[in-house]
Amino acid sequence: MRLHGYFRSSASYRVRIALNLKGLSAEHLPHHLRKGEQRAPAFLAINPQGLVPALQDDAGAILTQSLAIIEWLDETHPEPPLLPSDRLRRARVRAFAQALACDTHPVQNLKVLARLRQLGLAEEQVTEWAAWANREGLAACETLIAAEPGPFCFGTAPTLADLCLVPQLGNARRFGVEVAAYPRLLRAEAAAKNRKAFADAAPDRQPDAE
Amino acid sequence: MRLHGYFRSSASYRVRIALNLKGLSAEHLPHHLRKGEQRAPAFLAINPQGLVPALQDDAGAILTQSLAIIEWLDETHPEPPLLPSDRLRRARVRAFAQALACDTHPVQNLKVLARLRQLGLAEEQVTEWAAWANREGLAACETLIAAEPGPFCFGTAPTLADLCLVPQLGNARRFGVEVAAYPRLLRAEAAAKNRKAFADAAPDRQPDAE
Repeated sequence: MRLHGYFRSSASYRVRIALNLKGLSAEHLPHHLRKGEQRAPAFLAINPQGLVPALQDDAGAILTQSLAIIEWLDETHPEPPLLPSDRLRRARVRAFAQALACDTHPVQNLKVLARLRQLGLAEEQVTEWAAWANREGLAACETLIAAEPGPFCFGTAPTLADLCLVPQLGNARRFGVEVAAYPRLLRAEAAAKNRKAFADAAPDRQPDAE
Repeated sequence: MRLHGYFRSSASYRVRIALNLKGLSAEHLPHHLRKGEQRAPAFLAINPQGLVPALQDDAGAILTQSLAIIEWLDETHPEPPLLPSDRLRRARVRAFAQALACDTHPVQNLKVLARLRQLGLAEEQVTEWAAWANREGLAACETLIAAEPGPFCFGTAPTLADLCLVPQLGNARRFGVEVAAYPRLLRAEAAAKNRKAFADAAPDRQPDAE
């Protein structure tokens, strides 16, 4: 398999963790987002959205969107499972993941922040926008798992929720969010970071890291 | 079941279509987003994200996030299926849905547009922002299904992709997007709108419509 990604992309980071947890190897093909390489015609032919990640399977088929890729990995390589078998708990894990992957991350991604700058916003306002998006999402997620004993977001093993949480907390810190406000999320993050699959997927461990 | 929603919320609209396709009835509990009713303490106790939709099942369990709710409905009421059985096609349908539900809709929702106004943007700039988000998402989706014979997004029956597309096209028109640029998407929308399940879920057919 080949993973088109970028070391600092949260969505690529989620898929890297999933591949590591499943014990799958992939050739990593970095596309430098800050240099706009994701908008090169060769990459747009792979993913018309011009976003990373995109995963090519062994037959050359292309999959896009991190959550769809991770669900596909979970269906094609079921062990260890990234979603609970109980349907209601599956829905809870997916909802937590989507609170970050739909309502938080896209509101503070590179493309949106670039657009804010184009509209004349000062750098301080752009950073505060990103911090706001992170605070809103993380505060909701803290409440969503308040009653979950952990240590991971949902139980004693990582799920899709943890795959979304760990990269998002990294973003939040970069934008100056006081993450101490989310102790339950930090406990899940600590459990995750103890696992080699998460540690090896970290942005600063990637070959294209700057 | 009880569906907490709002007539004009795209995410609520997706779930209404899913319920109708499955032949399921739910009590509809409207929360007026423009009046901020989704931030009332009683609703935050239901969904800490302060977003609609939220679905309460017959046992009182609460589900949030439209895509997670729809996958749960599809798992608990499998007929008619809203995802293909082939894994690669499931991934494609989910990716299309997420291109709208993650990368498009949250960037142009009420909360984000309100924040842009707070930052001093003129109403014209706010509308252009929303139109831009829609154009980006719809252009990508048009390409994602360019080779799909249809008439629906993926095949001859509606899937999760169509449930996301129809509400998003409604938003795009409200923000003045020239949707004629997306003929394949319009063909899928026309097929969907011929179905009673879609027609009955339309915003202007809801009891709280203004």
